[in-house]
Amino acid sequence: MLNYIEYHDASPEVRAVYDDIMAVRKTDWINNFWKSLANDPATLRRTWESIKEIMRPGGALNPLTKELIYVAVSTTNQCGYCIASHTAAARKAGMTDAMFGELMAVVGMANETNRLASGYQVEIDEPFRPR
Amino acid sequence: MLNYIEYHDASPEVRAVYDDIMAVRKTDWINNFWKSLANDPATLRRTWESIKEIMRPGGALNPLTKELIYVAVSTTNQCGYCIASHTAAARKAGMTDAMFGELMAVVGMANETNRLASGYQVEIDEPFRPR
Amino acid sequence: MLNYIEYHDASPEVRAVYDDIMAVRKTDWINNFWKSLANDPATLRRTWESIKEIMRPGGALNPLTKELIYVAVSTTNQCGYCIASHTAAARKAGMTDAMFGELMAVVGMANETNRLASGYQVEIDEPFRPR
Amino acid sequence: MLNYIEYHDASPEVRAVYDDIMAVRKTDWINNFWKSLANDPATLRRTWESIKEIMRPGGALNPLTKELIYVAVSTTNQCGYCIASHTAAARKAGMTDAMFGELMAVVGMANETNRLASGYQVEIDEPFRPR
Amino acid sequence: MLNYIEYHDASPEVRAVYDDIMAVRKTDWINNFWKSLANDPATLRRTWESIKEIMRPGGALNPLTKELIYVAVSTTNQCGYCIASHTAAARKAGMTDAMFGELMAVVGMANETNRLASGYQVEIDEPFRPR
Amino acid sequence: MLNYIEYHDASPEVRAVYDDIMAVRKTDWINNFWKSLANDPATLRRTWESIKEIMRPGGALNPLTKELIYVAVSTTNQCGYCIASHTAAARKAGMTDAMFGELMAVVGMANETNRLASGYQVEIDEPFRPR
Repeated sequence: MLNYIEYHDASPEVRAVYDDIMAVRKTDWINNFWKSLANDPATLRRTWESIKEIMRPGGALNPLTKELIYVAVSTTNQCGYCIASHTAAARKAGMTDAMFGELMAVVGMANETNRLASGYQVEIDEPFRPR
Repeated sequence: MLNYIEYHDASPEVRAVYDDIMAVRKTDWINNFWKSLANDPATLRRTWESIKEIMRPGGALNPLTKELIYVAVSTTNQCGYCIASHTAAARKAGMTDAMFGELMAVVGMANETNRLASGYQVEIDEPFRPR
Repeated sequence: MLNYIEYHDASPEVRAVYDDIMAVRKTDWINNFWKSLANDPATLRRTWESIKEIMRPGGALNPLTKELIYVAVSTTNQCGYCIASHTAAARKAGMTDAMFGELMAVVGMANETNRLASGYQVEIDEPFRPR
Repeated sequence: MLNYIEYHDASPEVRAVYDDIMAVRKTDWINNFWKSLANDPATLRRTWESIKEIMRPGGALNPLTKELIYVAVSTTNQCGYCIASHTAAARKAGMTDAMFGELMAVVGMANETNRLASGYQVEIDEPFRPR
Repeated sequence: MLNYIEYHDASPEVRAVYDDIMAVRKTDWINNFWKSLANDPATLRRTWESIKEIMRPGGALNPLTKELIYVAVSTTNQCGYCIASHTAAARKAGMTDAMFGELMAVVGMANETNRLASGYQVEIDEPFRPR
Repeated sequence: MLNYIEYHDASPEVRAVYDDIMAVRKTDWINNFWKSLANDPATLRRTWESIKEIMRPGGALNPLTKELIYVAVSTTNQCGYCIASHTAAARKAGMTDAMFGELMAVVGMANETNRLASGYQVEIDEPFRPR
C-alpha cells in the first residue's frame, strides 16, 4: 500500500518539489497531502506547479481571499483534510475569527439557497443570462 | 403548480419583503428566485432576512469577497441559476474579468485537490488539528 | 447515439417492463427516464424491480413520505430531471403546496447546517455515537 | 483556534440561545454543533431561530417526517456529524429500525437514479414541466 | 441502535446472502458494509443481487475497469468507507500503483474541469448534443 | 460579459494553445469549453497542459479507460456540459453502447452504496485501512 514519502526517502525529483514547497511557503516541513502525492511524482509536480501559479501573490485577488475561497469549496465538498489544512492556511494568511464566522455564514447560506433555487425549479432571469 | 408571484398579485406580507429587497439592493425589479419563494411567505421572509443580515456591508469581509464566496459555492454545487445570478451580483459589486478568472482557477483547483486528498486517504497532520 | 425506445419499437423484454410500470403506476404512458434505460434492458429491469420493491405501499413509511425523501435527495443533488419527475410524483401522492414549502425549507436548512457542521469541524458528541 | 463554548463560559446572548434550545428540545445539555456556532453569536442565533421555526410541530409535515428528510439530505451529502446527530433526533421523534431501513433504501435508490438520469442525459417530459 | 450482524447471529435469510458473498468473492469474511445492511435483510439481499449482477465478469467492461470506476465515484463523493473498501478491491483485481496514480490524476482533473465548465456557464456544442 | 473567443479573434498565446489542441486531438474545431477558458489565457494554458499530460496514451491506463472515468466523475457531479462532451470523447475512443450501459450501471450503483455506507455509519474494516 501507499506510504507517506518522507524527505530522506524521496527521489531527487520529489526532493526538488519538497524544497520548492518549503521555500515558497516559508516552512520547514511537508504536510501529508504532498507526502501522499509523492507516490506519483508526476502528479506531485503538476499539482504543486498549478497551486503555486494559482495562489501566487500579485494577482487580481489577494492571497487571503484565495484561501477563503479554498475553505468555501472544501466545506461545500465536506472534505475533512482540506477543511483542516486550508483553514490553517487561511489563518496564517490573516483570517480572523470574525472573518471565519462570516465565511461560514455565507457558505452555509449559499448551500441553502442553491437547493431552494433548484428545488423550486427557478429559471434564469433575462438580465442574468451570461452571453 | 407553483407560479412566480408578481408584485401586483402579492399579498401585503410578500409585498413588504419585495419592497425591502428592492430598497436594500437599489433595484426596481424582483428576480425569479424571490418570486418562487413567495409561494411560501414564511420561507421568503426568513431567507431574505438571513441573506440581508449575512451580506450586509460593514462586517469583517467586504461585500465583493462575500459574493466571490457565493459564486465559489454555487460553482462547486453546479447550480445553474445560482451561478448566473451571483456572477451578475459579483460583477455589480466590482468583480473584474481578471478576478473572475482567478476565482475560477482557485475553485477548479480546490475541487481537484479535495478529491486527491480523499482518494489518497490523507490523514490530518498534527498542526492542522482544529482543537 | 442513444434514442428513447418507444413501446412499438421495444423488444418483448422491454415491453414487459413497460407494461408492469404502467400497471403499477396506473398510467398509460412511459416517461423518458425508462425510455432511456431501455437502451440497456438489464439496467431497465433491475432498476424498475428495485424501485417497485422500495416504493411499494405497505411498508413502515407511506408512499408520500417516500416521495418527499426522493425530492429531498434530488434537490440536494440538484438533478433537474429528478426534481421535476419526483415533484410531480409527490403531488400525485398527495403533496400539497404547504407540504412542498416545508419540504424545501427543511432541505435548504439541512444543506446549510451540513456545511456549518463540516466547516466548524464539529466532533460527534458521545450520545450520538452509533454503536 | 475555536473552542466549544460551554454554558458557564458563555455570554448572556449565547446563554439565552442555549436556554431556549434546552427548553424547546426538552434536554439538559447542548451538543457540539451549537457550542461551535457560539463562537459567532450572530450565526448561532440566526441558525437556531431558523431551525426552531422550520422544525416546529403543527405544520403540514409532522416532526418525524422532517427529521427523516434531514437524515436523507445529510446522508446524500455524507456529513458524518449531521448523520449521527439527526439519526439520533429521528429516533427520538419515533423512527423505528424498519423506518430507518426504508429511509436508507429510498435515499440509496434516489442517489442511483439521479446519476442514471444525468448520465443518460434524459430530457424533462412535457407533463413534468413545472410552470 | 444498529449492530453489525455477525454470521453466527444471523437469520437463515441473511446467512444465505453472506454465504453467496463469500463464494462469489472467494473470501472467508464479511466486511462491515454487509453486516450493517443485514439489519434490513431486504436491502441486504437487493443490494447484493444488484452488485453481483453489475460487477460480474464477462461483460463489456472487465472487472478491473469496473472497480476503477467505483473508486472514481467514491472519491468524487468523498465517501471514506467506500474509497477504502473499493481501493482494496481494485488492488485485488489487479490495480498497480501506477494505475492508481493515473486514476487519481484523471479523477482530480475531471472534478476541476467540471467546475470550470459550470462556472464559465459553457453551452453544449452542437456536435456533443445527445439525441 | 464573457464571450467565446474564436480563433480569428484570439491572441497569439491563445492561438498556440488552440493549434496544439487541434493537433493532439486530430480535429479541426475548438469546443466551447476552451473558447470560454480563453478569456483567461493562463487558465487555458495550464488546464490544457494538465489534461494533455494526464490523458496522454502510453500510461498504465489506456485512453478509453480514462475517458470512462471522466464520464463517471462528470455523471456523479451531474455536470451537463461535461457529460455531453466526455461521452462524445469516450465514444470516439471506442466506447460501445454495451460499455456505456455497464458504465452507467456501475456509476449508479456506486452512488447508491456510497450513501448506504454513510447512512449506516459503517466503520472501515481493519483489512481495508490504508496505511
